[in-house]
Amino acid sequence: MGQNLIYAVPFFGLIALAYTFIKSSWVSKQDVGTEKMGRIADNIADGAMAFLRAEYKVLSIFVICVALLMGWSGMQEGSSPLVALSFILGAICSALAGFIGMKVATKANVRTTNAAREGLGKALEIAFAGGSVMGLGVVGLGVLGLGGLFLFYSGMDGWSIDKVITVLTGFSFGASSIALFARVGGGIYTKAADVGADLVGKVEAGIPEDHPLNPATIADNVGDNVGDVAGMGADLFESYVGSIIGTMVLGAAFMSNPGWADQFDGLSAVLLPLALASVGIITSIVGTFFVKVKEGGDPQKALNMGEFISAGIMLIATFFIVKTMLPAEWTHNGITYGSLGVFWAVLIGLASGLLIGIVTEYYTGTGTKPVLSIVKQSVTGAATNIISGLGVGMISTAIPIIILAAAIIGAHHFAGLYGIAIAAVGMLSNTGIQLAVDAYGPISDNAGGIAEMAELPKEVRQRTDKLDAVGNTTAAIGKGFAIGSAALTALALFAAFMTTTGITEINIANPKVMAGLLVGGMLPFLFSALSMNAVGRAAMDMIKEVRRQFKEIPALTAALAVMKSNEGKEMSQWSDADRKTFEAADGKADYSKCVEISTRASIREMILPGIIAVSSPVIVGFGGGAEMLGGLLAGVTVCGVLMAIFQSNAGGAWDNAKKMFEEGVDIDGKMHYKGSDAHKATVVGDTVGDPFKDTSGPSLNILLKLMSVVALVIAPFL
Amino acid sequence: MGQNLIYAVPFFGLIALAYTFIKSSWVSKQDVGTEKMGRIADNIADGAMAFLRAEYKVLSIFVICVALLMGWSGMQEGSSPLVALSFILGAICSALAGFIGMKVATKANVRTTNAAREGLGKALEIAFAGGSVMGLGVVGLGVLGLGGLFLFYSGMDGWSIDKVITVLTGFSFGASSIALFARVGGGIYTKAADVGADLVGKVEAGIPEDHPLNPATIADNVGDNVGDVAGMGADLFESYVGSIIGTMVLGAAFMSNPGWADQFDGLSAVLLPLALASVGIITSIVGTFFVKVKEGGDPQKALNMGEFISAGIMLIATFFIVKTMLPAEWTHNGITYGSLGVFWAVLIGLASGLLIGIVTEYYTGTGTKPVLSIVKQSVTGAATNIISGLGVGMISTAIPIIILAAAIIGAHHFAGLYGIAIAAVGMLSNTGIQLAVDAYGPISDNAGGIAEMAELPKEVRQRTDKLDAVGNTTAAIGKGFAIGSAALTALALFAAFMTTTGITEINIANPKVMAGLLVGGMLPFLFSALSMNAVGRAAMDMIKEVRRQFKEIPALTAALAVMKSNEGKEMSQWSDADRKTFEAADGKADYSKCVEISTRASIREMILPGIIAVSSPVIVGFGGGAEMLGGLLAGVTVCGVLMAIFQSNAGGAWDNAKKMFEEGVDIDGKMHYKGSDAHKATVVGDTVGDPFKDTSGPSLNILLKLMSVVALVIAPFL
Repeated sequence: MGQNLIYAVPFFGLIALAYTFIKSSWVSKQDVGTEKMGRIADNIADGAMAFLRAEYKVLSIFVICVALLMGWSGMQEGSSPLVALSFILGAICSALAGFIGMKVATKANVRTTNAAREGLGKALEIAFAGGSVMGLGVVGLGVLGLGGLFLFYSGMDGWSIDKVITVLTGFSFGASSIALFARVGGGIYTKAADVGADLVGKVEAGIPEDHPLNPATIADNVGDNVGDVAGMGADLFESYVGSIIGTMVLGAAFMSNPGWADQFDGLSAVLLPLALASVGIITSIVGTFFVKVKEGGDPQKALNMGEFISAGIMLIATFFIVKTMLPAEWTHNGITYGSLGVFWAVLIGLASGLLIGIVTEYYTGTGTKPVLSIVKQSVTGAATNIISGLGVGMISTAIPIIILAAAIIGAHHFAGLYGIAIAAVGMLSNTGIQLAVDAYGPISDNAGGIAEMAELPKEVRQRTDKLDAVGNTTAAIGKGFAIGSAALTALALFAAFMTTTGITEINIANPKVMAGLLVGGMLPFLFSALSMNAVGRAAMDMIKEVRRQFKEIPALTAALAVMKSNEGKEMSQWSDADRKTFEAADGKADYSKCVEISTRASIREMILPGIIAVSSPVIVGFGGGAEMLGGLLAGVTVCGVLMAIFQSNAGGAWDNAKKMFEEGVDIDGKMHYKGSDAHKATVVGDTVGDPFKDTSGPSLNILLKLMSVVALVIAPFL
Repeated sequence: MGQNLIYAVPFFGLIALAYTFIKSSWVSKQDVGTEKMGRIADNIADGAMAFLRAEYKVLSIFVICVALLMGWSGMQEGSSPLVALSFILGAICSALAGFIGMKVATKANVRTTNAAREGLGKALEIAFAGGSVMGLGVVGLGVLGLGGLFLFYSGMDGWSIDKVITVLTGFSFGASSIALFARVGGGIYTKAADVGADLVGKVEAGIPEDHPLNPATIADNVGDNVGDVAGMGADLFESYVGSIIGTMVLGAAFMSNPGWADQFDGLSAVLLPLALASVGIITSIVGTFFVKVKEGGDPQKALNMGEFISAGIMLIATFFIVKTMLPAEWTHNGITYGSLGVFWAVLIGLASGLLIGIVTEYYTGTGTKPVLSIVKQSVTGAATNIISGLGVGMISTAIPIIILAAAIIGAHHFAGLYGIAIAAVGMLSNTGIQLAVDAYGPISDNAGGIAEMAELPKEVRQRTDKLDAVGNTTAAIGKGFAIGSAALTALALFAAFMTTTGITEINIANPKVMAGLLVGGMLPFLFSALSMNAVGRAAMDMIKEVRRQFKEIPALTAALAVMKSNEGKEMSQWSDADRKTFEAADGKADYSKCVEISTRASIREMILPGIIAVSSPVIVGFGGGAEMLGGLLAGVTVCGVLMAIFQSNAGGAWDNAKKMFEEGVDIDGKMHYKGSDAHKATVVGDTVGDPFKDTSGPSLNILLKLMSVVALVIAPFL
């Protein structure tokens, strides 16, 4: 029975990939629109692929070096050089998922714009279809890769289940490495392009960021895809496979128990996470069919519908799977567990994910009390806007942390450390549709930018804005979900780390552990500072390049001069000669050079954070011992989760505080509109919040999981 | 021999108090200056006493209630209702130290201004003398109170040393309660008055904050004293007595060892911290004699000289005291300790305090690389100034944390948990002169404000500015020192907590502990948000009161109208009638009402943070158990120290980034002056940094120590 299930798992992965193939073909068949639209979309697509190519070049070198190291380390007893294969495949699957997701996103964006020329319903359908390719691609490759490798290693002669799983762990490390590049590098890229394009407008040339004359504008739109599609995809791919592997390690521990028996050759606890993930693929696919909206409808409701239906079906399915697979009751290390307890743990995981999402929405959504408080404080200037935004971000950590703490205690109560790990799997089981909803956001964001750049009628932009507004909310919720799942995944890996090293206690009273806690807690602060400074430096590179282009490309120089001399006049009032000069500049900006500069800068800037993340567990583990490393992991998890929630929510709240001025907002009886002093203050807050929520916050997710995975990988040696 | 030493300790406390009496008399004898200066100084002094009166009213109620609770709790075995006496005395000593310090500071300020009309040397002497009253007052009352009570309890019939120390712990709790009110409430008051006075200027009436017409101006100057004199004094008083008591608890543990023998009735390890503190009083007094500066000299060097000489003498004295008092070697719980090891631990504490101070100076001082980076980023606007300031604050946590972690491991290596506690005592042994240097700052700050308000010649303000600039640097270093000592004190109390509850391990693998870590880590975020929001609300109250005064006090209304109609004109160009109207308003503003409003608001606002700080250990301890409480303490200590360093240094760096524009600063070859766009951006950063470094950051020191003390107090019950 066990063997049958092992064969079935990769099959579900293939189902997901078949879905992505069908959806991406459908998207490609949709109409692109005008010739100008097509050109812009091609520019964005080219820029996105340029970033990926540059990133993969550096990545390949990294992967080869680490694979060699892992292969060498795998030669010891209990492991195998094939761990290098796991590592390489984990990296390839993550990179492939990102590639597929980006490719379809950069096809879906312009087709969404085109559909928005007719109506809202089709536009949502295309944007969401694009997102679902990312979502199902990630879960499909994850299940296929993990399931396939597990199948392969299980067939190896003489390999114990412990050896199989140990060799499999490399897959998680491969996924984490890609996540580091994609999320941290991608995050720096995104913000550098955004800030650069912004500052070019303000400081250099007086042109707005979405203006076709702005050489940085394409890089900016590419950045949406790089950060929020590929980066988020890699982040969740890492959590997804990390939580599954962590659970498998803990499930294998049960097998050493005498009296452990099931219908699956004893592998039930090991296979359960894979089974849940596989079924999650189906429930996600089913959920996507419910995401539809009519003209004048609310896209938010459509997306919520899909997510809730998936969650509901998943819950019911989980009950039956757990009841069927696991023994009704068993004892391990003196503690009694039950399949019902495991179900409760999964439920706790699912519920926590949902609740954290709802709380995130409260602290960051337009019109909520916290966001309104920021709006109010903007009347007295930028400083009070910043102070209140920071306060909202800090206070927003309270409830999610209490939810997490309760989830940890609850899941452990019902099913021990295995319960905590399976709760993470439960939270992540619907990653397919969750990521689809996440990735939908940047696609509608791009669609809006394209509508602007192609100078389409106003109601097109209004429709894409409606989709985009919902996209901001889902992005914030998605970030909350990503942090929550990162925390549980880190803890699952932490539990696996302890099981592997054989440590049963990490005692805070041991000064080494206390020191580890302090240093671990400090790392998220260091990491945040490095990523934020990186954005500044990379943006500077971008601005220098833009200056160079305005000086050295004649068509641009001329067009800029013409714009400045006609300042204040509508374009219809310009002379014919001036208008000709301006139009001649169209497409002359060297967009790809900007993309190249930003790409190189972001990859250069993420090397130091990456080294810190990988080497600190190694240094502390081998220098201070496994207990100290445990302290380090605990410290980085606690502070990392807090800093991630703080920064992500502060950024989201600042963003929506600014947005509230779009239609004008009533503050204490007086109306304030876009362009007012209060609005200008919110622009400052939004600019500060950008690197918070798009670079620094997300990179902390990666930090804690990557360090946990590295610890798990070196655990056998400690 | 032990008895003799016990008698000697309070005597040293009396020496310190004698010194403060001599110095404060000397200050009072100095010349006040003009009649106007005297009036302004009286207003400030009255305002300061008004704040203290209002604060003490609420405090008394709190102290009585808690004393009753403690008296009742003391009735169990191993304790005594007299613990209520310890509590009350600890509160009284702390409050008295704050009172004396404030009273002399508000005398020293105007006399400093007057001395500055002649020269720099006398001005420094007066300002520093005022500061030294605060410094030696704190250590004197601490040593007198602790030493006296210890003497008293040791004389009680049938009391074991454990009972004596348990009852003594109440003194630390009393000190912590006052610190909560003084530092948190005082911090809110300080910033509310500062922000209110600022905004009145900008938003309401167009008058600057130091203008005599500004009703909030006196509250602002009072705030300097409330926050940086009394608040800092209470903070260090809490660390001072907390570290001593923590060490005494751990020292008592040695006495249960068979074979423990010394010349002090076995009390050597218990008395050592008191002995070091006593000697520290003498070395501090000696150091004060070296703080002198000639005309044209550098006040910074003078202050440094005093501190280093004190530290040097203390080190030598420590060696001999430790060698003389403690046995050369002894074994406890299987580990061998030595008096030399204890000396190394003390040295590590002293060195860490020094190093953390130096690192703080690097990240916050004028002209350093990090501060220059903020200045550079201010050219591109407020948002980039904020981002770089936040980055500097975050990255500045790295080295101090590594120093702390190394200190913990080192001190433990040489002398176990006792070593960590005695390292804290070592770091705090020179609190006398350290606090004198700290409290000197606000006195020179006030002196500058008085020079402005009394419209004295320019060179007076220049001299006081010179003193004040140094004061800002010492303030930042002092804050770094306060955080470092708070961390070690919290750990000392944490170790004492474990010893008292009998727990030998707090295991992170236990999900309760992990949950405790998470919730504990979250508390500093919550606390910071509450204190920052509190500043905003209290400032609003202030502004409403100022509006009311401008409407309802005829002389002010008239003067304001006259100012507005003469906008842009020098006062010499006004009509005689206008000038008369303006001068008639002098002193008509109801300064004390503003002080009262701000006081009430700040005390109201600190109730919730106070409740959270006191109740969370109680709830977690009794609800989740001692181990979970241990996790909570560890979490709040790690995150609290990080957030405190981050906020304190970010605030200091932003402040000095703004100051660099006073004389104009060269950025990439171009000069930027006060009033430039870049300068305006630094003003935004400075305004954000103010609550960071004066309210939120310092309140975290209190949070972690207060929670540790509460845990220690309830420890016998768990």
